[in-house]
Amino acid sequence: MRIGVDVMGGDHGPQVLIEGAALGLQANSTITELCLVGDQVQIEAGLARAQCRDRRIRIVHASEVLTMEDDPRSAVRKKKDCSMARAIDLVQERRTEAVISPGNTGGLVAAASYKLGRLDSVERPAIATMIPTGQSQFVLLDGGATPECKPLHLLQFAVMGHVYAREMLGRKQPRVGILSNGSEEMKGTEVTREALRLCKEVDLNFLGYVEGRDIFEDKVDVVVTDGFVGNIVLKTVEGMGTGFTRLLKRALTANPLRQLGAALAKGAFRSIKHKMDPEEHGGAPLLGLNGNVIKVHGSARQQQVKNAITQTCTALQHKITEQIQTAVAQANQRAARLIEPAAASASA
Amino acid sequence: MRIGVDVMGGDHGPQVLIEGAALGLQANSTITELCLVGDQVQIEAGLARAQCRDRRIRIVHASEVLTMEDDPRSAVRKKKDCSMARAIDLVQERRTEAVISPGNTGGLVAAASYKLGRLDSVERPAIATMIPTGQSQFVLLDGGATPECKPLHLLQFAVMGHVYAREMLGRKQPRVGILSNGSEEMKGTEVTREALRLCKEVDLNFLGYVEGRDIFEDKVDVVVTDGFVGNIVLKTVEGMGTGFTRLLKRALTANPLRQLGAALAKGAFRSIKHKMDPEEHGGAPLLGLNGNVIKVHGSARQQQVKNAITQTCTALQHKITEQIQTAVAQANQRAARLIEPAAASASA
Repeated sequence: MRIGVDVMGGDHGPQVLIEGAALGLQANSTITELCLVGDQVQIEAGLARAQCRDRRIRIVHASEVLTMEDDPRSAVRKKKDCSMARAIDLVQERRTEAVISPGNTGGLVAAASYKLGRLDSVERPAIATMIPTGQSQFVLLDGGATPECKPLHLLQFAVMGHVYAREMLGRKQPRVGILSNGSEEMKGTEVTREALRLCKEVDLNFLGYVEGRDIFEDKVDVVVTDGFVGNIVLKTVEGMGTGFTRLLKRALTANPLRQLGAALAKGAFRSIKHKMDPEEHGGAPLLGLNGNVIKVHGSARQQQVKNAITQTCTALQHKITEQIQTAVAQANQRAARLIEPAAASASA
Repeated sequence: MRIGVDVMGGDHGPQVLIEGAALGLQANSTITELCLVGDQVQIEAGLARAQCRDRRIRIVHASEVLTMEDDPRSAVRKKKDCSMARAIDLVQERRTEAVISPGNTGGLVAAASYKLGRLDSVERPAIATMIPTGQSQFVLLDGGATPECKPLHLLQFAVMGHVYAREMLGRKQPRVGILSNGSEEMKGTEVTREALRLCKEVDLNFLGYVEGRDIFEDKVDVVVTDGFVGNIVLKTVEGMGTGFTRLLKRALTANPLRQLGAALAKGAFRSIKHKMDPEEHGGAPLLGLNGNVIKVHGSARQQQVKNAITQTCTALQHKITEQIQTAVAQANQRAARLIEPAAASASA
């Protein structure tokens, strides 16, 4: 397997990405080549500092970096030699089979969509994010690639999420639900109601609507929503987690008695931190494109980069992209029967 | 002040509602009449059990109860003598100035909209829910009354939320933001982008877009979104809170050392519970209607009912409904200048 890592766009600079990549390489003997894409001088210095001399590493120089300030829509055209674009080029040129990047999400979606194109069967890409619940985890998609969706897009997200959860979480029959404001079928929006109708017709373990309070109850493996709602939910969960941790820390250090109590119970906090830690879950793939693209968090550190590499190897072994192409094509066929008469009667 | 309480639709039966109402009455000398609406026999028995002989109490008999199983759309027509409908009738007949109900949210929105009608200036009602962040709190609207919104509806929600936060939270210049998938103006949906343009033109301390991770950072007082997204966010926050509490409890009781630590630090957990407890925040008003309607949680207990009554008294003293009518009418005037040319150019 050949994998490319854009080491430049992270919040903590290239060193953590380089070290994470080196750990990932150590842990995965199936990798035959790992391309580190970015400033050659910095990468060479970083590898020396990490004492990494693995011969499977190639450095691919790129002179620019896409930052959070760059407008994702024009970035690819303006910064042709940025590390993210170069890393995607490697996939396009079949020099690597997957790209991992910590950079600007909007830029990654735009550049990867433009350079790799979508799978024949898929109309819009979706970011599949794994969310830990403490007891278990679920896949939410779309996390922000396609803010406004048609019903068919949501159907395709459901099928992509099904394949991803089956192969990556090992669920035999992943439970799939559409996120809504109530469980009754009359709830939701025009788009979700039509998506509900379509999802019932395809070969999924489909629960219908799920609500915000169900998703932390281990009732569902794949939560389907548009990229607008998905992104809001992701960031709300992230924000609430950070806020709650801060609150807990402040309360537990407010006086010596509480500090002592917290010290005695520290194993409990550590176990929760471990269970809830997004670092454990590596990256979030951008599904539906003609190539494997994995977004890691901008603030990702070594361990998360390593996990993202391992996850990418698993995804390649399981041929996720190929399986998505086939499964979505099948779902489209079934859905076509439902969509056409409805469209015909609507225009009549 | 005259207030009506529907005591029948709660998850824990009428007794907790009756006791909560009695506590609310004790705490608020401005109340001249409190109507308890529901089954007369049960209410009389409940008052006796609570040893409440307050002469300001009236019992208004209703023979039916709206349950969670009733379809909200047809419920009002089918169960004409349900306690919720009777309690709303009291507002319509000007026998009370406000109604508090723990019943089916969809039913309450439908019945109150139908019986009371909307304020002249307001096109759609919104549920304003107070969400505690641990450090502070913010108002989210709409929590589920209007799932699909036009830009003008979101503008009106922003103004209603502004009035509510100013009067009820005592914020002089409440910070108002539209919930979105990014802070840049090109983000969001067609509807939110147009709402952004409208909100900039009216007299608000308007922040533009806010993200899910901002809302727990004490950066915003009023979070505006449609009822579909708002309901999903509310329930996600609720579900995550419940899940996290359960996780913490399990981890802290896993062995005797942790149990001892948790016992020593229990003040910390109690302070957080107090800060995050939705019970402290009473009810969520349904804003934009021609009357004061307050939804309390189906699982509300005595303390929350008492707080909802106090909150209702404050809302009446501050003439929230009248102020909303005026403020939204002013905003509509400003927005009309912006909407008409745009609509004209769109149809040209």
